[in-house]
Amino acid sequence: MAKSYYSTVLDHPADDVWAVIRPFDHYAWAGVEGETVIEHGKAGDQVGAVRRVTNGGNTLRQVLLAHSDVDRSYSYAFCGAPPFPVRDYAATIRVVPVAADGRSFIEWWATFDCAAEERDKWVKHFENEGFAKWLAALRRFMSDGAGRTRTGT
Amino acid sequence: MAKSYYSTVLDHPADDVWAVIRPFDHYAWAGVEGETVIEHGKAGDQVGAVRRVTNGGNTLRQVLLAHSDVDRSYSYAFCGAPPFPVRDYAATIRVVPVAADGRSFIEWWATFDCAAEERDKWVKHFENEGFAKWLAALRRFMSDGAGRTRTGT
Amino acid sequence: MAKSYYSTVLDHPADDVWAVIRPFDHYAWAGVEGETVIEHGKAGDQVGAVRRVTNGGNTLRQVLLAHSDVDRSYSYAFCGAPPFPVRDYAATIRVVPVAADGRSFIEWWATFDCAAEERDKWVKHFENEGFAKWLAALRRFMSDGAGRTRTGT
Amino acid sequence: MAKSYYSTVLDHPADDVWAVIRPFDHYAWAGVEGETVIEHGKAGDQVGAVRRVTNGGNTLRQVLLAHSDVDRSYSYAFCGAPPFPVRDYAATIRVVPVAADGRSFIEWWATFDCAAEERDKWVKHFENEGFAKWLAALRRFMSDGAGRTRTGT
Repeated sequence: MAKSYYSTVLDHPADDVWAVIRPFDHYAWAGVEGETVIEHGKAGDQVGAVRRVTNGGNTLRQVLLAHSDVDRSYSYAFCGAPPFPVRDYAATIRVVPVAADGRSFIEWWATFDCAAEERDKWVKHFENEGFAKWLAALRRFMSDGAGRTRTGT
Repeated sequence: MAKSYYSTVLDHPADDVWAVIRPFDHYAWAGVEGETVIEHGKAGDQVGAVRRVTNGGNTLRQVLLAHSDVDRSYSYAFCGAPPFPVRDYAATIRVVPVAADGRSFIEWWATFDCAAEERDKWVKHFENEGFAKWLAALRRFMSDGAGRTRTGT
Repeated sequence: MAKSYYSTVLDHPADDVWAVIRPFDHYAWAGVEGETVIEHGKAGDQVGAVRRVTNGGNTLRQVLLAHSDVDRSYSYAFCGAPPFPVRDYAATIRVVPVAADGRSFIEWWATFDCAAEERDKWVKHFENEGFAKWLAALRRFMSDGAGRTRTGT
Repeated sequence: MAKSYYSTVLDHPADDVWAVIRPFDHYAWAGVEGETVIEHGKAGDQVGAVRRVTNGGNTLRQVLLAHSDVDRSYSYAFCGAPPFPVRDYAATIRVVPVAADGRSFIEWWATFDCAAEERDKWVKHFENEGFAKWLAALRRFMSDGAGRTRTGT
């Protein structure tokens, strides 16, 4: 199976990071332009919820497949065709404490199918143009204190 | 760690069983007397939701720790002191297809701490007086067509 | 990702089934013709061991990726090109007790990549021509008492 | 259940760290005095192998429960009574790549039972006097180039 994987260390505690990324409808931390809403009034920690990310004329729809406060993780997939020529894309994000120093280790990965000759391209694409950028944005989001504010509520 | 584990085979497909047990606020299938409500208007597939099971003068409160449509499973723990002299009780229920014949394999387990000399007693208690009985009730619930009705909606 | 999955219920306890399937070099239970040997004198429960299955003029080589007495499971992949036009094939077999009646639930699955238009074909192939047949052979192997003999040693 | 957990970030790639810690009979990296041998001529990546750590007049015996090159992890338990007043102690060590910078994230945890009033004491003990110290020793071992030497063989 094709698998993209990215991970990094963040300078904030895992519980603080989880508090920021935990709601499936809160996506501002990833630096993704546009508006994210959950359909049918569902909640951002409700399994089965569908989020709709609208950016200009483009709309993505993703469904929350699993969510865990124990593992500080959630999984999701595209509803309908994804905006890439891949199939069965399913992703998981997870954050774990670095016990030694109070920081956190965060992982983001996806599995998918695609044309054999495009496999390396898409594996790299999701890693470098997706997860790496969104986690860099999360790092800035946490450092700007937005993390603290949110977790303080 | 003390661990109670029970599992059995049900005569219905895993997806049908999951449709019945999936909502954390639907507990009639377990044959447990009383009323189950979720606090603060949360949904039965919302991680963090607290269900309150009232039976006569007794009230239990349990929090949904994790929920997965991928694994057809959810995990929960007691809020506050459990009604048993145990500590850190956390349970998971999970249903998997028996591919050979369209039936399903269902597991229910809990980990907890308790006084060393009472360990065997509580391990057996949760297995025999809890999981085994509730899954026997689920079997009857599915056979009575309540499963079909519910999954048909 | 392409995934083949098969599971069934066996009439023997999980520990007895595990005792039979546990050694990576013992493959007679699967009803596969030919001879299975482990290269370089490694053991059948040694992670990294490579088994060589010779059948007529054909030879398969598979490496043991993971092995667990806790989960009663092991995982393996092909060394070099598999004898099918698939890529990154990795499989896991796992056996779990059916606590209710002392039988066992056994699962076997594989993930792999292949040409998009052949995906359904290979998913079905591994399920029906592989796992289902090998587990039917295991069932006969256990019933013939070979399981008991082996586990009794 | 009582659980001790420790994790840290190491300055070497996960594959290099795994190459060092992978053999169950190689324990010099942990800075533990004494001699470690595997009983009955088994291998250090052989599930079921028992290692015997002798230090002065004291001898520990531990069995390898699971081993995985996929997860870069192994699990083990004490054979017979552990040298602490705890029960059912089982531990796992696991190393994962930090994709962002080529370093690695390493975790070590154990679950066990003990007297209720000693629980916090032993949880801290295994974390601070065990995992933290052994991983600090691993860090030195890797930095001293012993890791490179070993992985270079």
